[in-house]
Amino acid sequence: TSLQITASSSMIEKETMETERPHTFLREADENSFNSSSSIRLRFEKMIRDAQDSVCAAIEALDGGGKFKEDVWSRPGGGGGISRVLQDGAVWEKAGVNVSVVYGVMPPEAYRAAKPSQNGDVKPGPVPFFAAGISSVLHPNNPFAPTLHFNYRYFETDSPKDAPGAPRQWWFGGGTDLTPAYIFEEDIKHFHSVQKSACDKFNSEFYPKFKKWCDDYFYIKHRGERRGLGGIFFDDLNSYDQEMLLSFATECANSVIPAYIPIIERRKDTPFTESHKSWQQLRRGRYVEFNLVYDRGTTFGLKTGGRIESILVSLPLTARWEYDHQPEEGSEEWKLLDACINPKEWI
Amino acid sequence: TSLQITASSSMIEKETMETERPHTFLREADENSFNSSSSIRLRFEKMIRDAQDSVCAAIEALDGGGKFKEDVWSRPGGGGGISRVLQDGAVWEKAGVNVSVVYGVMPPEAYRAAKPSQNGDVKPGPVPFFAAGISSVLHPNNPFAPTLHFNYRYFETDSPKDAPGAPRQWWFGGGTDLTPAYIFEEDIKHFHSVQKSACDKFNSEFYPKFKKWCDDYFYIKHRGERRGLGGIFFDDLNSYDQEMLLSFATECANSVIPAYIPIIERRKDTPFTESHKSWQQLRRGRYVEFNLVYDRGTTFGLKTGGRIESILVSLPLTARWEYDHQPEEGSEEWKLLDACINPKEWI
Repeated sequence: TSLQITASSSMIEKETMETERPHTFLREADENSFNSSSSIRLRFEKMIRDAQDSVCAAIEALDGGGKFKEDVWSRPGGGGGISRVLQDGAVWEKAGVNVSVVYGVMPPEAYRAAKPSQNGDVKPGPVPFFAAGISSVLHPNNPFAPTLHFNYRYFETDSPKDAPGAPRQWWFGGGTDLTPAYIFEEDIKHFHSVQKSACDKFNSEFYPKFKKWCDDYFYIKHRGERRGLGGIFFDDLNSYDQEMLLSFATECANSVIPAYIPIIERRKDTPFTESHKSWQQLRRGRYVEFNLVYDRGTTFGLKTGGRIESILVSLPLTARWEYDHQPEEGSEEWKLLDACINPKEWI
Repeated sequence: TSLQITASSSMIEKETMETERPHTFLREADENSFNSSSSIRLRFEKMIRDAQDSVCAAIEALDGGGKFKEDVWSRPGGGGGISRVLQDGAVWEKAGVNVSVVYGVMPPEAYRAAKPSQNGDVKPGPVPFFAAGISSVLHPNNPFAPTLHFNYRYFETDSPKDAPGAPRQWWFGGGTDLTPAYIFEEDIKHFHSVQKSACDKFNSEFYPKFKKWCDDYFYIKHRGERRGLGGIFFDDLNSYDQEMLLSFATECANSVIPAYIPIIERRKDTPFTESHKSWQQLRRGRYVEFNLVYDRGTTFGLKTGGRIESILVSLPLTARWEYDHQPEEGSEEWKLLDACINPKEWI
């Protein structure tokens, strides 16, 4: 979703490739300062890098065949990222897990794209910002094994350059959502239950609110359907305690493995026919449509010059578009489509 | 490209499917009136329906296996279309040839999207419009056989409702372009030569101008490359005699078969490897990126509720995205990519 917002701006420098991972992508001033804001920056970077390590380790262990290829990049003025991609694995067709840390200066229109304001209080001048996030899309081979996407990000603006006294802004965003081609109720219930448990540790209103937000966000308007069966999604979250939200984002990121891996263990070796595969490919076509047409992060990143290969790693290895395909009413394919058109309460 | 602009507007009625082709999709008032404007409407509709018939016949004849499936649709207030799609043929993986005739009322923002004005002289109120066009994308199976796209359209606005005395506007748009995965110089030269001959019959400035316009239009900005090897493209064309432009569009549409069919005859049975196929699929991924992210007609159509299946029939049956794929310097794949990055003069 919108992590890539943060990895791109028309005013961001071109990245350079690195041969080694630095211990931090923060600017020295952030790294050595002890005010609470830089502490959040530091701790958020550590959290997403730990999450990248643990998710990649879990994926490689279950895949058994594929290995992640790592690309490290940085920008001269500070910031950078680590892209890891496993392609043509035994279990996953394409699995990307990226972290990035970005310092930039947003033009006002970019600021609007990144954070559509509720009340139009967009600052007029260029806005320096800091953003860090983890973003991942995992596309398995087996059509009964669902695709997973998750993304957790932290965003701060400095005072705008033409308004040095103005307060900083910060917010958290993210979510985890599941995109199966076929419904196994126990899988979907398990996935949503883990999301709910993570939410409930912090606020009993989070799950219902973020579940609906997720259904609303991953909407392919021209199809009248969602790309998948949802999960949780939130953005622009700043009306709670900052420490609490950092813990919440950490809990969500740590829930990815327990929410997803058991499902893949159950489904990765399920026998399937060419017709099952073809339906999965059609649903991947919908995934491409959503990401290229609607996803805020992707569309913004493409327009403003982010690292293209990192942004588009979310696209499946393969996808398919058939003219006017209509699943037979009552079929398994139809049930999936129906649930994408009419979101359900799974728990 | 932008034919689908005309097949959609947020103020357009939902289409209904028909069991028979009507002899015209024009409103009765247009059909029976003898002013010059309705005469152009009538003759343009006849031209694109004839072109649809002849292109479909040529494709079916060469394919030898696949047959076009036809969908006819209309709108209660006038207008409609014929979508023809051949899928999983012997030669073509997916071939769509659509005609449509649309009466609509454009909201001002739609008017801007359909015709970005050179000087900002956009009319303020809703603008009734008429549009007719043919749009086609032909994706062959063989990776050495190129994809072809062509689209010819005629557009008229009535006087805006709040300015009854204002003059009507009309314009022609369209083009034909070739998207190979591999370069055979004789094919590309032949294709461009036929385009140039069609242009030269009317104006010696057309080919160089419309060739460059095509290279500029089919630009995938985030990749820094074109989707293919071009051809001709023009839009908003109204500064020439209207009869001349109707003849020119007719000539262009009639040039599709001689420009394309001989190339497919030469390449359809060329032996290929899995690696050739995979490269073709990657280029099809670029085709999807262009159409969903940049193409004016597609993006406008998706946003405003055109007939989705007609709009997205331009997408290939299958496509592929590999992370950070770089063809080896000097390879055949690299040569294609180089020509997409640095457009050439082929004749």
